[in-house]
Amino acid sequence: MGKEIKHNNDNLKRNNLNFFFAPNSIAIIGASDSPRFGFWNTKYLLNSKFKTYPVHLYKDEIFGHKAYKNIKDIPDNIDLAIILVGNESVVQAVKDCVDKHVKGVIIETAGFAETGIKRYIKYQEELEEIAKSSNVRIIGPNCVGVTNFYNEFTSSDVDFSKTVKGNIAIIAQSGVLGNVFIDWASVGQKIGFSKIVTLGNKIDVDEIDMIEYFENDPDTKVITIYLEGVKRGDAFIEVLKKITKPIIILKNGRSELGSRAIKSHTGSLAGNDRIFDAIFKQYPSIFRVDNFYEMFNIAQVFATQPLPRGNNVAIITGSGSIGILACDELEKQGLILAKLGEDTIQSMRAVAPDWVSLKNPVDLGPSQMITLNPTLKAIFNDNNVDSVLFLFTVPRLPLELLGVSIMPSLRLIKNLSSKFKKPCIICVFGSRWVFDFILKPALRFQIPVMDRVKEAIMALKMMYEYNQYLLSL
Amino acid sequence: MGKEIKHNNDNLKRNNLNFFFAPNSIAIIGASDSPRFGFWNTKYLLNSKFKTYPVHLYKDEIFGHKAYKNIKDIPDNIDLAIILVGNESVVQAVKDCVDKHVKGVIIETAGFAETGIKRYIKYQEELEEIAKSSNVRIIGPNCVGVTNFYNEFTSSDVDFSKTVKGNIAIIAQSGVLGNVFIDWASVGQKIGFSKIVTLGNKIDVDEIDMIEYFENDPDTKVITIYLEGVKRGDAFIEVLKKITKPIIILKNGRSELGSRAIKSHTGSLAGNDRIFDAIFKQYPSIFRVDNFYEMFNIAQVFATQPLPRGNNVAIITGSGSIGILACDELEKQGLILAKLGEDTIQSMRAVAPDWVSLKNPVDLGPSQMITLNPTLKAIFNDNNVDSVLFLFTVPRLPLELLGVSIMPSLRLIKNLSSKFKKPCIICVFGSRWVFDFILKPALRFQIPVMDRVKEAIMALKMMYEYNQYLLSL
Repeated sequence: MGKEIKHNNDNLKRNNLNFFFAPNSIAIIGASDSPRFGFWNTKYLLNSKFKTYPVHLYKDEIFGHKAYKNIKDIPDNIDLAIILVGNESVVQAVKDCVDKHVKGVIIETAGFAETGIKRYIKYQEELEEIAKSSNVRIIGPNCVGVTNFYNEFTSSDVDFSKTVKGNIAIIAQSGVLGNVFIDWASVGQKIGFSKIVTLGNKIDVDEIDMIEYFENDPDTKVITIYLEGVKRGDAFIEVLKKITKPIIILKNGRSELGSRAIKSHTGSLAGNDRIFDAIFKQYPSIFRVDNFYEMFNIAQVFATQPLPRGNNVAIITGSGSIGILACDELEKQGLILAKLGEDTIQSMRAVAPDWVSLKNPVDLGPSQMITLNPTLKAIFNDNNVDSVLFLFTVPRLPLELLGVSIMPSLRLIKNLSSKFKKPCIICVFGSRWVFDFILKPALRFQIPVMDRVKEAIMALKMMYEYNQYLLSL
Repeated sequence: MGKEIKHNNDNLKRNNLNFFFAPNSIAIIGASDSPRFGFWNTKYLLNSKFKTYPVHLYKDEIFGHKAYKNIKDIPDNIDLAIILVGNESVVQAVKDCVDKHVKGVIIETAGFAETGIKRYIKYQEELEEIAKSSNVRIIGPNCVGVTNFYNEFTSSDVDFSKTVKGNIAIIAQSGVLGNVFIDWASVGQKIGFSKIVTLGNKIDVDEIDMIEYFENDPDTKVITIYLEGVKRGDAFIEVLKKITKPIIILKNGRSELGSRAIKSHTGSLAGNDRIFDAIFKQYPSIFRVDNFYEMFNIAQVFATQPLPRGNNVAIITGSGSIGILACDELEKQGLILAKLGEDTIQSMRAVAPDWVSLKNPVDLGPSQMITLNPTLKAIFNDNNVDSVLFLFTVPRLPLELLGVSIMPSLRLIKNLSSKFKKPCIICVFGSRWVFDFILKPALRFQIPVMDRVKEAIMALKMMYEYNQYLLSL
């Protein structure tokens, strides 16, 4: 019967994956109260608002909760089972989940096809068979499952007191990488995520399911994907055709070396990278990047900024040299240095010392404290300007000693950006102290802050292309 | 007579610029005790061990030191004059310095040829004339002069309690950029500098003088240059021919846009970028980079690591995905993924769980805490390995909660790296907390830490090429 239902309701089944991100009840099979794999998420869930049951072969109690020998012993319906037991025990645990009629299973345990060892490959094949012949949906194995930054549900170890929520979804393959993404982007750079899923060896739920799910997820505006390979090629292309949200994709294995390394990582076939590249270029809402810094910095611009109507960029800088480097990058990427209108130059001239260069890039130099706000007003108001790049170059010493606040300028940027519907990105040059000096208040106004001009300009270019695509629909 | 001496002793004069970095006595013309341009360096020098005399038209005392109306009134020989007065008063101030027989003048004041304003261009021409017809050497105008990280002399504003000293010299054009370099690299990334000079409009001392000076400076192992243009083209090529220290060069104005912006920045002509590129490629100790992150991260590897004998790289990672991304980059840049010897694999297998992939890249996954040190030993000891890239991917949560120390592994890396004369670079993936967790102890062992694999691989490639060049001498 399972088989029948699956075939008839394939789309419904595939798209309705909410139980992974907001389960009503959870079982942790292999729950652990000693510091080993699974300790932190067991502890977190058993102390959370989520109704969670530990399952353990020998223990009667875990973190003060009654432990069950088998998931089938739990006197409640279970939406989601998280499996942490050793690889030898996973197949039986999943069978028990099927008997229990759980909706979703996350297998975090590693040690399957990725090892290249025959016996472990066979375990994975058995799991695939169970997924096919039942209604249960499975994420993994060899992953850390899901995190939802809105309800703070996680099958991984996330410290929500340090993360930021936002509108970027992540689809990643490996667990470590998922955690690195959260740590670098959300904790470090204050880039806000909606949900993250790590897919591991993808015996059932794959990037295609997740792209469809996030396309319909109201908390997600931008989808980021770290991809090592695709098993269902045709379906992947079909889903890319349908998607309207921007997708930023980091596809590993561009090289021969990389392709070979993928095989021993998650057992996926990388496929011919040129084919992927051609596919990505064909769909105007898909943007390929080369590393995860690009991926998240660009996603943050998509998630927070209005789309630029054209590709004319105004650059405001406190250092002529850095302005010039930005010009080099702008030209390299094919964007245009906006020609500022006469009115704009007049308005800026009224407040600027005569040594300030008022051509674009506008180099305010040390006059910045006085001239920045009037300059911002004039530039956002200029019809020749479609987007604004603000290069912040004031070192720590004057900032710290003068005790200035960047808050009024950030508020002004936010207001001007909303009023004129023009994106703005701040690039900071300096130590981490200076970066944080801008980053923390900028978060409040949802202005993206990054340290590499190249990535800022990539973002403006992609946003412009995406806007052209939306206009063509 | 000055003229005669200059012509006869041109080389001697040009190379003996020590008085800029270690002056026996200093005059600050336009010394300021109110918070404006020049306040911080005046305050610093007048409170330092350096014998410093303030010069001010109206004030009798500055920070408790007797102020003189004119440098000529100072009853002492002056090695170095730092000029901070308004642009209208600079020519007279420099004439006074010549009369006083100072050895060097740093003109920090801006507002000369870079403004494009005729009157100010004329001032600059007058200054050039003085430099030509006298023995005084002039740095600037439109710069912040010099900093020496060893004796802690600076004509700029540097907080030496936060910087790190090392063996990288910087030649930069603009003052803001010089400060940003110090703030980002030395304060933020613990990259150690020997000396920094900002040249501004270069009416006299230029990059050619400084390259020669740093080639002979015992504290400098690597020279980094940020360049907007060159006035003495032939002499520049002559000096590049002679230099044996590695030079990492960031040349602005690759683009048409950039070239035009340079003109309004320091009034230099950028020249045809392709000619520069051809020149840089011709000299094997010159390495061109695209941004200052590359420049300093790569310089740090040159300054601290042994040169690799070949281009076979071993990669140790805690995340398979990040290992694969590194393989992609390695292949892109033309380095080789080292084929590990059987002995190496045997030694690693003895300690690694069977799911650990022991091919290069070696993916230790969560086993890292146990397997890292034996793996490092086996890999450094492998004759097929010329350099080691260690990708650190452990997120904050386990590091913080387990309270592990990375110190023993870093000490081991240092010892192995010295013993086998193989460079090692650590790339950190994660939040700033994780970065600092490694960066601070790594500083003690002089192991370079960075966040971009691309830059680490660029460094290994350039180091290999540089070693080939040295062997060919």
